[in-house]
Amino acid sequence: MAEEVSGEELNQINLTEKNYKIVLQYEGTRYSGWQGQGNTDNTIQEKIESILFEMVGYKVMITASGRTDAGVHAYGQVANFHIKVENNNRCNKEVMEYLNRYLPEDIAVIKIDEVDTNFHSRFNAKEKTYIYRIGIGTRASVFERNLIYPMEEYLDIRLMRECGELLVGTHDFKGFSTSKENKKSSIRTLYEIKIEKIQDEIRFTLRGNGFLYNMVRIIVGTLVEVGLGEKDSKDILDVINSRDRKKAGRTMPPQGLALVEVEY
Amino acid sequence: MAEEVSGEELNQINLTEKNYKIVLQYEGTRYSGWQGQGNTDNTIQEKIESILFEMVGYKVMITASGRTDAGVHAYGQVANFHIKVENNNRCNKEVMEYLNRYLPEDIAVIKIDEVDTNFHSRFNAKEKTYIYRIGIGTRASVFERNLIYPMEEYLDIRLMRECGELLVGTHDFKGFSTSKENKKSSIRTLYEIKIEKIQDEIRFTLRGNGFLYNMVRIIVGTLVEVGLGEKDSKDILDVINSRDRKKAGRTMPPQGLALVEVEY
Repeated sequence: MAEEVSGEELNQINLTEKNYKIVLQYEGTRYSGWQGQGNTDNTIQEKIESILFEMVGYKVMITASGRTDAGVHAYGQVANFHIKVENNNRCNKEVMEYLNRYLPEDIAVIKIDEVDTNFHSRFNAKEKTYIYRIGIGTRASVFERNLIYPMEEYLDIRLMRECGELLVGTHDFKGFSTSKENKKSSIRTLYEIKIEKIQDEIRFTLRGNGFLYNMVRIIVGTLVEVGLGEKDSKDILDVINSRDRKKAGRTMPPQGLALVEVEY
Repeated sequence: MAEEVSGEELNQINLTEKNYKIVLQYEGTRYSGWQGQGNTDNTIQEKIESILFEMVGYKVMITASGRTDAGVHAYGQVANFHIKVENNNRCNKEVMEYLNRYLPEDIAVIKIDEVDTNFHSRFNAKEKTYIYRIGIGTRASVFERNLIYPMEEYLDIRLMRECGELLVGTHDFKGFSTSKENKKSSIRTLYEIKIEKIQDEIRFTLRGNGFLYNMVRIIVGTLVEVGLGEKDSKDILDVINSRDRKKAGRTMPPQGLALVEVEY
C-alpha cells in the first residue's frame, strides 16, 4: 500500500524549477526602457513579468543581459527567468507561445531554451554587439523613422574610422560613460568598431565584452564630432587618458541604437 | 515713357503656373487612404493640400496616380499639382523642402520635377508595380509589423506560382475587383506576377498597365487560397471567365500592400 503523501510533498514531486533563456526583439519607441527608474509601469521587463504572473500565478523576476534605455531597440536581447513547471507538462515552445500571445506587437520572443539553473543572462554575458544607425539627409526614412537618427550634416567616414580604431582594444572607458558608479571597474574591451555606409545610412557596429552606461551613444557621438571636423585623434586619446566625460562628444539620441546580439 | 500696368497685368507678367510631379513615400497605417470616402480629414491628399495651401495662399488640388486604400503604403506614389510661382523665385527643391518641413514623419516627398503643363499623374500612368508581403509564422515582425501581414498556415509557393502565371497577360479582371463600376472597361494587362520567398516572408510583386479597385488584394487572396490547397487552376480560369467576384478568393488586409513604382 502506498504511503500517504502530503500536499507539500506532492508539490515537490510534480514541480520542477526550470530556468528559461529567451531571446527578445523589441522596438523601444513606446517604452521607458527595459527597466524604468522609479515608475516601472511602462517598461519591457514589466510587460513580460505581468504575463508570466498570469501564466504561473506568482511573481516571476526576469533578468536581462543589460538594461536598454527608453527608445532603444533590440534585435537579440537575452533574458532569463525561473519558473516552477509540472514535469513534462509545459514544453518550452508553449511558454514562448504563451508570451507571444499576450505581448504587445512591438515585443516578441524569438527563441527559448531551458538552461542550467545557474545561468544568469547578465553575469554570464561574454560579448555584446550594438548598432547605431544615422540617416544621411534632412528627413528620417518614412519606414524606419523610429530606428534611424537623421543627420543633415556631412560626416567624413574615413576620419571616423581612423579615430574609431584608437578605441578598439582594452581601455578605461570612464570618459565615454555617464555612470556615476566609482567603485566598479570601467575597463572594457572593444573588439571591433565597424563604420559602414549602406545606401543613405551610416551604420556603426560596436562589439565588445561589455559596455558602460551610455557608452555606445557617447562613443558614436564623439566619432560624429570627428566626422564633422570638430574633434580629432588627439581628443579621442585625451578622453581615454583623462577619463573625463566632459572631453567626449555628445550622447546620441536613443532611437538610432539597437542591441543586436549577446553571446555567452 | 512706360505704359501704366494694372495689378492684374503685373500678375500675368510675374507669375507662371508650373506643374509639379512629386514622388511620395508613406506608411499608410495612420491614414484613411490617399483620398477618403466622405470624411477627408485624415487622408494623405488632405495633409499635402493643406501644406500647399499654407505655401501659396489658395486651394491647390493634388492628383495621384491612384487612390491607395486606408492602411496601404507607398514607396513611390506619384502625384502632381499646379501652382503659380514667381519666375525663378522658388526652385523645385524649395517646394520639396517646404513640403517635407511640414509633412508628418510618415509621409515624405523624395523627388520633385517640373513637368509639362498637360502631365496628369493618373491618366498618363503607363505601368504600376505593387508588392504584397506575407510574414510566415505566428507573429508579425516587431520592426515591420505595419508592413507585413502574418500568416500561420503553410502556403505552397510552387502552386501559387503556377496559378499566378494564368493571370499574366491581358484579361478581363472584373472578377478580381470589388468595383461597382460597370461602364468602364475592366480589361487590364498584367505583365508579371513574381512570388519570392525572402527569409520569413513571401513577397508577391505585381506589375501591370493598371489595376482595378482591390485587384491586387483579391489576386493575392485568391493565390493564397491556392497555396492553402483550397483553390486550383480551374478556379482561377473560372474567375476570369465568369467575371464573378464571388468565385475569387478573399480580399487580403491592406497592411501587406504597397505601391512601389509608377511609370510614365
